[in-house]
Amino acid sequence: MTRIALDAMGGDHAPRVPVSAALLALPELDSSDVIQLVGKPDAIQAALDEAVAANGGKKPDASRLTTVAATEVIEMSDKPTAAVRGKPDSSMTVGLKLQATGGSDAFVSAGNTGAQMAASTVLFRLHSGLTRPAIATIFPTARKPVVVLDAGANVDCSAQELVQFARLGDVYAEDILGRDHPAIGLLSVGEEPEKGSAAVKEAHQMLREAGLNFLGNVEGRDIARGECGAGAIDVVVCDGFTGNVLLKFYETIAPFLVGLAAKHAGRDPRELLGGLKELDYAEYGGAPLLGVKGVSIICHGRSSARAIKNAILVAKRAVTTDMNTHIGRRLAEGAAAPEPA
Amino acid sequence: MTRIALDAMGGDHAPRVPVSAALLALPELDSSDVIQLVGKPDAIQAALDEAVAANGGKKPDASRLTTVAATEVIEMSDKPTAAVRGKPDSSMTVGLKLQATGGSDAFVSAGNTGAQMAASTVLFRLHSGLTRPAIATIFPTARKPVVVLDAGANVDCSAQELVQFARLGDVYAEDILGRDHPAIGLLSVGEEPEKGSAAVKEAHQMLREAGLNFLGNVEGRDIARGECGAGAIDVVVCDGFTGNVLLKFYETIAPFLVGLAAKHAGRDPRELLGGLKELDYAEYGGAPLLGVKGVSIICHGRSSARAIKNAILVAKRAVTTDMNTHIGRRLAEGAAAPEPA
Repeated sequence: MTRIALDAMGGDHAPRVPVSAALLALPELDSSDVIQLVGKPDAIQAALDEAVAANGGKKPDASRLTTVAATEVIEMSDKPTAAVRGKPDSSMTVGLKLQATGGSDAFVSAGNTGAQMAASTVLFRLHSGLTRPAIATIFPTARKPVVVLDAGANVDCSAQELVQFARLGDVYAEDILGRDHPAIGLLSVGEEPEKGSAAVKEAHQMLREAGLNFLGNVEGRDIARGECGAGAIDVVVCDGFTGNVLLKFYETIAPFLVGLAAKHAGRDPRELLGGLKELDYAEYGGAPLLGVKGVSIICHGRSSARAIKNAILVAKRAVTTDMNTHIGRRLAEGAAAPEPA
Repeated sequence: MTRIALDAMGGDHAPRVPVSAALLALPELDSSDVIQLVGKPDAIQAALDEAVAANGGKKPDASRLTTVAATEVIEMSDKPTAAVRGKPDSSMTVGLKLQATGGSDAFVSAGNTGAQMAASTVLFRLHSGLTRPAIATIFPTARKPVVVLDAGANVDCSAQELVQFARLGDVYAEDILGRDHPAIGLLSVGEEPEKGSAAVKEAHQMLREAGLNFLGNVEGRDIARGECGAGAIDVVVCDGFTGNVLLKFYETIAPFLVGLAAKHAGRDPRELLGGLKELDYAEYGGAPLLGVKGVSIICHGRSSARAIKNAILVAKRAVTTDMNTHIGRRLAEGAAAPEPA
């Protein structure tokens, strides 16, 4: 039995969209799994009634869809640190605390990302050997999707932190994407080890000794191809500044380019884009916050019900593969490699 | 009369492609303009004979297409610094020296980029107030194309250098793209001034006082749109690491996405991509190395004749608008703003 707490109040269209996501997820989870809707009970009940009515009156199994009351809501404009201290009875804080105290196995939210990162770090703490958590995202490529991290949790990164991201991405690719001995590339401006920023050049040398399947440097052009000169890529390691810029660039360049192509092909851009399952971010669910000793899955504020449903499935997979224990073990194994200062 | 020196030996298919580019450029230049083909005279003559034969025997005006002899060739694998010292009679060094000594007005090459940057900096020197040159590239967007710089000349950048790039991009957008009072965005991970790396946050504050049309921070998602919350964007300022990764990502994600869309639309990807003039890098010509006191246009090694032809037109425009004097004047005007350490 896996118990997944879902922030019913998080996201641009909460609680309607998270509640719909929960209803979509239930049949795809094991029959013993439970989704815990965290938030204002009245608002959740109203959204549930609406969703059930829209679904021809078919009610979900009440034993598998519970409600956990939380009176406050963290707004998108709230400061990250204000979440835990300022709104202790918010759906986010209550949902995360439920896991920290053993009442839940995972947490999923489409709410304020900064608040979720800060609260997850405070309530779960970091694995030993880490200085920062990292956000792992999935980039569709011409080959298999690749994991890109960090995607925005850390803007200025040391070489040691880049190596930490490589270890986190390694376990993520193995446990969540099912990749065997994941191939890890370090994002830089040239394939030669002497190319890159000071932190990247130092990280390159450390990664050669880190006991990982390290491909060496990869370039911007290798990401879309999903491979570099040294072979197929599973994980791309970069600082959170570059990762965040790339992620947001990708999310908007895709509709622009596909729209352009559709226009030239005389097709409806929306229809064509809708058919491109490869590019559908909703397919890949949420982005796990890696490094914290708990399961905390971050979704876009504008996530669809299907995107949040897929994030719930990512949470389930993180729990069943015991990803966090796995990360802790890998970090301990890597302790022979240079440790963070 | 503008005299443009073209590195006939630079690029993956030299001298054939540069020579073809020169023949394409001549009718698009003023009738008094001259292209100076720099390289091995025999090889240039053979390429010329071939191009003339392919063109039905129509010979170019010999007074407008001259040859400047250079016995050496800088290979793609040569170290940047070796160019000037190691191969003083290379087409690149001879072509740049011709300008430095007043015998030419601009230089265009599809050869070794690192060598071109190093040799241009040594032979032309930097404008006062600059610590590094920058590479300005053009990104197609849903609106007008935007200038992104630096695209790879500088990996670790200080706040002062980011401000320098803003000044260089400002003049470039005005002189080469014809933008009036160009709108400048600083690439970051959020629009708020307190978002970003240490250098970006400091640069943000400096840019507010720099006398430029500064929009504030822009994000990865704003580039493809060509606009941010504050309005349309003409120039995106970033460090050379991020810019290089983004540029190479864009160059490969475009064919991937358009190919995907074409497949779903039941169209030939090459045909569709070929029709998308908006995405054709050859349209935008080469990337000027900004900050040096000379005109040095950098082309991809794999540039087509049309791409090099367009780079020659960019060179012509840089000469006629007197972009370099303009840059020097703007930098002097900006001297009231904080200077590089």
